Amino acid sequence: MNFKQHENFVIQGPIIHSLSSNEIGYYENATIVVKKGKIVSFDSEGKIKVSANDGHVIKLINGQFLCPGLIDLHIHAPQYPNIGLGMDMPLLDWLKAYTFPLEVKYGDLEFASKVYRYVVKSTLSCGTTMAVYYGSMHCGSTIKLAEIISELGQRAIVGKAAMNRNIPIDNYTEETTQCLEHTQKVADCVKNLKNPLVETAVTPRFAITCDMPLLQSLAKMAVDQDLYIQTHISENKTEVEVVKELYPECIDYTDVYDKAGILTNKTILAHGIYLSDRELDVLKERGTCIAHCPNSNTYLQSGLCDVRKLWNHGVKVGLGTDVSGGCNASIVDAMRCALATSTHLSFQIEGYKPLNFQEVFYLATLGGATALGMENKIGSFAVGKDFDALVVDMMPLGGTAGVMLEHTLKEHVQKFIYCGETKNVKQVFVEGKLVHSK
Amino acid sequence: MNFKQHENFVIQGPIIHSLSSNEIGYYENATIVVKKGKIVSFDSEGKIKVSANDGHVIKLINGQFLCPGLIDLHIHAPQYPNIGLGMDMPLLDWLKAYTFPLEVKYGDLEFASKVYRYVVKSTLSCGTTMAVYYGSMHCGSTIKLAEIISELGQRAIVGKAAMNRNIPIDNYTEETTQCLEHTQKVADCVKNLKNPLVETAVTPRFAITCDMPLLQSLAKMAVDQDLYIQTHISENKTEVEVVKELYPECIDYTDVYDKAGILTNKTILAHGIYLSDRELDVLKERGTCIAHCPNSNTYLQSGLCDVRKLWNHGVKVGLGTDVSGGCNASIVDAMRCALATSTHLSFQIEGYKPLNFQEVFYLATLGGATALGMENKIGSFAVGKDFDALVVDMMPLGGTAGVMLEHTLKEHVQKFIYCGETKNVKQVFVEGKLVHSK
Ligand SMILES: [Zn+2]
Ligand SMILES: [Zn+2]
Repeated sequence: MNFKQHENFVIQGPIIHSLSSNEIGYYENATIVVKKGKIVSFDSEGKIKVSANDGHVIKLINGQFLCPGLIDLHIHAPQYPNIGLGMDMPLLDWLKAYTFPLEVKYGDLEFASKVYRYVVKSTLSCGTTMAVYYGSMHCGSTIKLAEIISELGQRAIVGKAAMNRNIPIDNYTEETTQCLEHTQKVADCVKNLKNPLVETAVTPRFAITCDMPLLQSLAKMAVDQDLYIQTHISENKTEVEVVKELYPECIDYTDVYDKAGILTNKTILAHGIYLSDRELDVLKERGTCIAHCPNSNTYLQSGLCDVRKLWNHGVKVGLGTDVSGGCNASIVDAMRCALATSTHLSFQIEGYKPLNFQEVFYLATLGGATALGMENKIGSFAVGKDFDALVVDMMPLGGTAGVMLEHTLKEHVQKFIYCGETKNVKQVFVEGKLVHSK
Repeated sequence: MNFKQHENFVIQGPIIHSLSSNEIGYYENATIVVKKGKIVSFDSEGKIKVSANDGHVIKLINGQFLCPGLIDLHIHAPQYPNIGLGMDMPLLDWLKAYTFPLEVKYGDLEFASKVYRYVVKSTLSCGTTMAVYYGSMHCGSTIKLAEIISELGQRAIVGKAAMNRNIPIDNYTEETTQCLEHTQKVADCVKNLKNPLVETAVTPRFAITCDMPLLQSLAKMAVDQDLYIQTHISENKTEVEVVKELYPECIDYTDVYDKAGILTNKTILAHGIYLSDRELDVLKERGTCIAHCPNSNTYLQSGLCDVRKLWNHGVKVGLGTDVSGGCNASIVDAMRCALATSTHLSFQIEGYKPLNFQEVFYLATLGGATALGMENKIGSFAVGKDFDALVVDMMPLGGTAGVMLEHTLKEHVQKFIYCGETKNVKQVFVEGKLVHSK
């Protein structure tokens, strides 16, 4: 089975999506009609009459269900080959030993092409229909990443890492002027792809590696051109201390970014583990979201991020894999890690209600879309949205998640969240186009 | 490629195993000679001369390495179809809603055969060469489980769950006399298989569902016949309270088992999260081990088990999946969950040194073997031991763990532990016999 982009089709069978942050809608026999990549009707009871005009009908079989595409708010494309390495080091040591020495290699466009093609195929195979990618510092390879994403049909926001100081290896910082020029060049080239699925993000690496003038210039560029911004915040206690020393004039980490103008309603901040109430109130005020990266926060020994607290402050949250600080490229894994982190918080905090599977599913889909301000375009199967979806298949035998008995749709969904593997992602659609199939 | 049992062969290439609880030996080019299922030589530098007598030579290729078989100290075979279900409930509610209603079905031998065949194939595909299985209460289906294990070539300890009270559904308790007879019958039938790889365990479910006379009789049977014993201890705070009420004459949970004579050096206790110093000292004294089941402890919201503390008290520890309290049948997942749990403990306890990947690898292999008193037979590649092993292959593309660059053997091992999937387990050998291959 293969579809040209924007072919019209109908999909029938078990369908699920988030109705709110803690409710999943389960439809045993629903019908979705897709035209030009968009959902033109969603009949939850399968009573709709399908006409020949509607195109090919895909019928899901026993053990399969349709699920909105998974959204990864934070992943470092160039670090992908390092997945699983150096996890016995804390953040700043790990950056020096593993991350920077690999990232500097992306000056080689051929190397970058090879890796990035693999990365995008891999994340698609994990069910990631929308990814917010950090690139390396390099202009050319980041443009190449955007081209490969565009070719392979993923939805994405891509940015060239910007940094002008405190990088502990040679040949991996730019002068401010050059950094701004290159950031602009990436923005222009991505725009020239004329692919509405691929956007650019201004990408200050984090406060330690960017001085205030660079942060301010990048913020201005983003605001002037209505671009996304991505960066890191408050991942690690040592990092928070270093930021305090580097910016003695600022109240706290958030204030550094706020003074620079970085905090917009199109800004994605990874981590946010140690944010104070004051800082969370500022983020709420600015409409800035957090990419919760629980796998990375555990294995890099950063800390436990309290999503419930972020939500209570009105801050928008989605999930990120943070490859290769995170050692798993799948947002299904990120859902499980978010459950584990929240459950472990509940062991410490009297009366704490840990996240449930409905809530982490929301984070992975509609919550991520909302964090990006794309809740009217993706994240669920509402009419008018783009058709970004996975066909999940719980029937492949072997391994851990195999299904032996008859189960309800809700039970299949639980099995996918708690023990689904890559092999359970059978097909992946972005804007109605089949972009991965096994 | 297929081997008859006890064919002689040679395996050459990268080989790893635990040298101690915190050191892995990495041998880039080693040679192991296997005769009649046993390791007759292990040349760490590949200098040995292989003769035609030694049989077929298996050469591992780039990205592959040989690893000792993984040991699962605690898994409930009948619960396997429930993997991933009901994880939003605490232990005692979950038992009532999910576990017992499924387990009671194993009175049907045909149903049991179908599921158990699937279970053993699945755990083999995950790389589990040795498993300690709980069966259901039923005598016939537990014997069937042992027969299937024997046929498929896994190494295992199998027990019929014994319980004579406090089971909240109908038709799922036995009278004491019948329970003892059936336990004896399973022991006799397993013995009659005349397969040295498959043994039986006396299996009191846990203190809540067994009264003192039953516990004492089971303990006596095990001691008289030199059988293993498996049960649960101190998994959940509510459970600990209930045990205290049921056994007011005992000092604590451990004392219940100690007074019954349950605690031998062939006893495997699952969980042990809330054990006091006094209890741990008793376990050390008795030579009784703990099956650490971190996935289950997290997703069933039981608590964080402190392996470092168990070790400091001299208690032997291995890993268990605790399917389906745990929602993953792979001991590779158990290694990751053990890392996560220990890391999260380190966030709470000043100066706490979390387990590292070398230590969880030990738990999964030589540590598990030592817990069972089988350290002279399995768990590493020492000469004289049985050849229980996996060929791990880190090269399959796609998903999350795919390898793009050249890596050292140590890095491949890290990738396997932090992000390996079922598909990375290429071949599985038990006592020199190929029992799984993909
Ligand atoms: Zn990051
Ligand atoms: Zn158990």
